[in-house]
Amino acid sequence: MAGICPDARVIDVTHGVPRGDVRAGALMLRSALSYTPIGVHLAVVDPGVGGDRRAVALRLADGRLLVGPDNGLLSLAGPVLEAVDIGASRFSVQPISATFHGRDIFAPVAARLAAGAGLSDAGQPIDPGGLVRLELPRPRVEAGVLVAHAIYIDGFGNVQLDAGTGAFALEVGGEALVGTTRARYVRTFGDAAVGELLLYEDSNRRLAVAVNQGNAAEQLGLAADDEVRIAPA
Amino acid sequence: MAGICPDARVIDVTHGVPRGDVRAGALMLRSALSYTPIGVHLAVVDPGVGGDRRAVALRLADGRLLVGPDNGLLSLAGPVLEAVDIGASRFSVQPISATFHGRDIFAPVAARLAAGAGLSDAGQPIDPGGLVRLELPRPRVEAGVLVAHAIYIDGFGNVQLDAGTGAFALEVGGEALVGTTRARYVRTFGDAAVGELLLYEDSNRRLAVAVNQGNAAEQLGLAADDEVRIAPA
Amino acid sequence: MAGICPDARVIDVTHGVPRGDVRAGALMLRSALSYTPIGVHLAVVDPGVGGDRRAVALRLADGRLLVGPDNGLLSLAGPVLEAVDIGASRFSVQPISATFHGRDIFAPVAARLAAGAGLSDAGQPIDPGGLVRLELPRPRVEAGVLVAHAIYIDGFGNVQLDAGTGAFALEVGGEALVGTTRARYVRTFGDAAVGELLLYEDSNRRLAVAVNQGNAAEQLGLAADDEVRIAPA
Repeated sequence: MAGICPDARVIDVTHGVPRGDVRAGALMLRSALSYTPIGVHLAVVDPGVGGDRRAVALRLADGRLLVGPDNGLLSLAGPVLEAVDIGASRFSVQPISATFHGRDIFAPVAARLAAGAGLSDAGQPIDPGGLVRLELPRPRVEAGVLVAHAIYIDGFGNVQLDAGTGAFALEVGGEALVGTTRARYVRTFGDAAVGELLLYEDSNRRLAVAVNQGNAAEQLGLAADDEVRIAPA
Repeated sequence: MAGICPDARVIDVTHGVPRGDVRAGALMLRSALSYTPIGVHLAVVDPGVGGDRRAVALRLADGRLLVGPDNGLLSLAGPVLEAVDIGASRFSVQPISATFHGRDIFAPVAARLAAGAGLSDAGQPIDPGGLVRLELPRPRVEAGVLVAHAIYIDGFGNVQLDAGTGAFALEVGGEALVGTTRARYVRTFGDAAVGELLLYEDSNRRLAVAVNQGNAAEQLGLAADDEVRIAPA
Repeated sequence: MAGICPDARVIDVTHGVPRGDVRAGALMLRSALSYTPIGVHLAVVDPGVGGDRRAVALRLADGRLLVGPDNGLLSLAGPVLEAVDIGASRFSVQPISATFHGRDIFAPVAARLAAGAGLSDAGQPIDPGGLVRLELPRPRVEAGVLVAHAIYIDGFGNVQLDAGTGAFALEVGGEALVGTTRARYVRTFGDAAVGELLLYEDSNRRLAVAVNQGNAAEQLGLAADDEVRIAPA
């Protein structure tokens, strides 16, 4: 990219997506976009590289350009106005390997777009409506119990849920049952005792479950997509 | 930061501070400052985020600006001429989350300072004398024995002590007892046999203990703050 | 480097070389150079730091400048036109530690070269023919069996061999025996069943062995330099 667009400022958002975890990558990308300048965004979590998944470049409604595999990774980033298939892009580096499209297709296409090339020059137009979308579970309320889902578990074992804090009538300092375990709803970790289970609004404004200086996912046996039931204490 | 100050050159000094280890972070910051250009230094190791620890920006005597939590992390960096509390800085990004001040307070304040804003515009003036300071142990000599302390253990298990090599009368090539284990005082790892315990002046000009191609901390059972006694062999 | 040459664009190629593994570093450097702009390349994998290995800066036939230890790390990068010993370079940072030449010698020399200093000003001229070279094993064909070697095992357990795909008569979709295990020759991972052993041309155009969503090195018990025999199925 430095060779193709020497003036581009390249920012590494993360290399911490778990291997092959397209959904975790999509969630991280969505969270990051609120804080990144408008520009070209290159995202590669690509377990199907070399198979029949498409390679795409997209223009979002907010002006951002996204480049990556069409496997759902880009699908949480926002409404798509224009899409092209870049699998046979003339901006690719030759020869194209079967296993490293990040290097041979995605990065050179992103760099050419950053250097000012038009999206329509990067590939063949396709219907944005046909792009692969991630299906995320949806929270619901049943008989006064919030049934949410673990959508992301970070490296500390903190569990992000698919509900905002408005989904449940909790007051800061109050208690609730997470499954069968009593938890305190607090502003931040230090407001709970060491080892105590806590509910809080995380930095993406999602309801989250943690253990102060502990690992909530391990303690509760939670994995991504698992239901998490939150009931009045 | 790229959005606020597009011309800033951002250098990642390290993302390798052990989680929540404020002292390790403070020692790394101190070591790094000898080699970094004068500028704005952003440091975040912040286990008390969202609690009552203050967020601060400081001007050092050498002209550097430091931004981070007031938990001791910045306290080994040098004499402070001027300090402001940035907990309610108008440079923050809104809304301020309770758990990610690195993103919502520290980074935007650092970027605004890099873009030329004055320190006094970043927050409320506070007394530099009231900043939290780390207490480090101090080495001493007792009956000819150097009683030092492990202040940092790196990823190789090398143990940095709180004494310089001038604290003890050793000649290169000579031997000493580290606890009850015989060690050779050498210039570099390759001057000791594989598996041999060695004393050396590390790259921060501190006395350090290592095992050539081994892990000294494990072998000697040392953790941070532990006393390390070095006696004539 | 930012202090010495503020306009230099610094690209981190990798910090993922296994500790002290000079050959893995040399292979990564060789692979990277096909994709990096002409410029100054700083490489440090330096288990013999402070010993009698030389520190060098080199000019390659393609115009690149290389800086690093003379331990073979730079020896796969291409033909060397000019070499200098920088162990006593006037571009070093003083005092030079015995254990961190990356900081005290290699980085400042690289930065001065990036800022336009001449190679002959960086150190004492030496004979390029006397530089340390890595000896890599060589593949051979014996009675119709390809006897190759594992030259690099990546973090997924994929095993790169020292042969190109032209070394053996395989057709995509065909089968072969890797040792005593049946493997399919495919274009990419997704063309094999989950858990199936596969042969493929990797992104460096080398023949490689992998297990789809598994770890081939573990399954086959392979380490670097081990022979890998590939026979008709």
